[in-house]
Amino acid sequence: MKFIIKKNCTSSRARLGELVTNHGTIETPVFMPVGTLGSIKAVTPEEARDAGVEIILANTYHLYLRPGHALIERLGGLHRFMNWPGPILTDSGGFQTLSLSKLRTISPEGVTFRSHLDGSTHFLGPAKAMEIQRSLGADITMTLDECAPAGASHDYVRNSVRLTEQWARRGLEQRKDESQALFGIVQGGIYPDLRELSARGLVRLGFDGYAIGGLAIGEDTRIREQIVRLTREFLPDEKPAYLMGVGTPEDIIESVKMGLDMFDCVLPTRGARNGMLFTKTGKLIIKNSRYAQDDSPIEEDCGCYTCSRYSRAYLRHLYLSREILASTLNTIHNLHYYSHLLSGIRQAIKEDRLAEFSHDFYARRVENRDQSEAESL
Amino acid sequence: MKFIIKKNCTSSRARLGELVTNHGTIETPVFMPVGTLGSIKAVTPEEARDAGVEIILANTYHLYLRPGHALIERLGGLHRFMNWPGPILTDSGGFQTLSLSKLRTISPEGVTFRSHLDGSTHFLGPAKAMEIQRSLGADITMTLDECAPAGASHDYVRNSVRLTEQWARRGLEQRKDESQALFGIVQGGIYPDLRELSARGLVRLGFDGYAIGGLAIGEDTRIREQIVRLTREFLPDEKPAYLMGVGTPEDIIESVKMGLDMFDCVLPTRGARNGMLFTKTGKLIIKNSRYAQDDSPIEEDCGCYTCSRYSRAYLRHLYLSREILASTLNTIHNLHYYSHLLSGIRQAIKEDRLAEFSHDFYARRVENRDQSEAESL
Repeated sequence: MKFIIKKNCTSSRARLGELVTNHGTIETPVFMPVGTLGSIKAVTPEEARDAGVEIILANTYHLYLRPGHALIERLGGLHRFMNWPGPILTDSGGFQTLSLSKLRTISPEGVTFRSHLDGSTHFLGPAKAMEIQRSLGADITMTLDECAPAGASHDYVRNSVRLTEQWARRGLEQRKDESQALFGIVQGGIYPDLRELSARGLVRLGFDGYAIGGLAIGEDTRIREQIVRLTREFLPDEKPAYLMGVGTPEDIIESVKMGLDMFDCVLPTRGARNGMLFTKTGKLIIKNSRYAQDDSPIEEDCGCYTCSRYSRAYLRHLYLSREILASTLNTIHNLHYYSHLLSGIRQAIKEDRLAEFSHDFYARRVENRDQSEAESL
Repeated sequence: MKFIIKKNCTSSRARLGELVTNHGTIETPVFMPVGTLGSIKAVTPEEARDAGVEIILANTYHLYLRPGHALIERLGGLHRFMNWPGPILTDSGGFQTLSLSKLRTISPEGVTFRSHLDGSTHFLGPAKAMEIQRSLGADITMTLDECAPAGASHDYVRNSVRLTEQWARRGLEQRKDESQALFGIVQGGIYPDLRELSARGLVRLGFDGYAIGGLAIGEDTRIREQIVRLTREFLPDEKPAYLMGVGTPEDIIESVKMGLDMFDCVLPTRGARNGMLFTKTGKLIIKNSRYAQDDSPIEEDCGCYTCSRYSRAYLRHLYLSREILASTLNTIHNLHYYSHLLSGIRQAIKEDRLAEFSHDFYARRVENRDQSEAESL
């Protein structure tokens, strides 16, 4: 994998880059929708492509448990298995052993955890995490990390940072396929000194890119932004920086300004399935009765498949009737929204007007809020 | 609507026809997938089109309750609402008041029933059924019928036939839009004399086409076939004949031979969502463990989107993981199977080799059964 910086923003640390992978070149900053089990939920790969998706994330933990990485390797790897021709990034599985597994025991060798599916016991160590991701054939892989629970003490997190560094070293040693990029994951919770310790340790080891982990859930926005900003300072400019599991359109714009290049989040896809649609003026909750007779599309000037063919009234009807097509059409729109947001950000960096872009982004939301309030008076 | 017979089969009563509707011309015999609530479950209209679907059925009962026919009319009719450019046939709602409503009371004026959604009381009479279908803007509409429960007595069914004929007459009188075709529905349960009575009565009234109703559930295959054959004899050759709610590929082939032109059934779509896939050699249950490592498509020589891109192993994985995409990919295949079956039938009639076609159809299934038995020895 190669990472080329094409342009630096003059008003912030944002940059326009190019990631050259085994499955094509993509521009950064980029958003990666989540394809947990080898499918972006509710859409075909072609629908995702048409909505502007270029790279996806798949979950090591999930695919290891079901259908198993060995099976996927035997059938030609994940790209072929799921009919996705573009780049794939796989996470390390560390986060899911925290968020999904009922019981986990951590030792220097790795994590013993119970499957969320059937309670069976499994072991995931740094070498195993590499082996699984090699079998899947991901373009970008991650070293195993220990993601500390929200609210963990300084002592706990210091130990977790140490473990994560040891596992990152093991990951590097166990790497067999040099054509797969390997990223290290910075941990350290909300403790600035531990974030610095973790970042410096990983940078010394030397990876193709660096991820900031452990911030996806349960943290206050301001604290999280401070931690991201601070951690980013310790990462090398010439490598891609990836903020894991984050987030909202606002989170992404702010993080881009701090020099982050890659993002993933379940928000656009999960939100879509729950009837939450992203628009330039904010969130639209499709089940709201105000849309019952609304013949307009989700967004008037949106170019997505859904907006060019269906009314809010129809989408509301499908959602309330629990029709599967509701999830598909809503997901297409939200994927397009995120792709379009990121391509707007890239264009703005290219034309050196990211500050303006950001200003407009927030202004449209404020206007809308004022208007909604006026309507409800 | 015009119906043109292009060719009669020499070995059976099958015929090749053309239905000219407000939304395009389609060839018969034709299968109409069910789009209950204004969506063919789990697929976009474009996916259905690509799978060969040309005409769909929508349910008057369902759309009346949710989102309401008045709303759909205000938004430009069902074609526009659901983004379906081809012809739409709507049923009369009579069947669903039997199959879905907990309580129904039948009077000469119509059916009083409880909504399966919220228990609210509604009234559906012959004029109301026409009004709803006019609002929806269907190309082909049906008169309200009283569908007698399976096992109903001769007395009950005689009364039901009489009511159905009265309602059919009211439907004709209430018809406001001559551009919408109107079909009468023959009832009469399993009683040959009542089927004859019902058919003759409706034919005297004169409709654009005739449906045979009341045979979709709970009847023995042989009895049903006898009733269909016998009823068909009393319907005019120059009008399209539609067998409602039937059925399996075998049912369709046999019914075509009896001179039936139109079919609808939830089987391909509902089956798909339950992991049942249609193939030339019979049904394939995708969750079966024998497909766990199977890299081949559902059918080797199938030209559908699903078969040209995905393995049985992947489809099994999606199905067991309850991924929404499983329903979509399976539905595309089953819709293609049915479309392909019907286009095969039409081609066979055209080339005067329907008997051969039918023989090959059954032979492939027998071969497969022999082979499966051999494998399991």
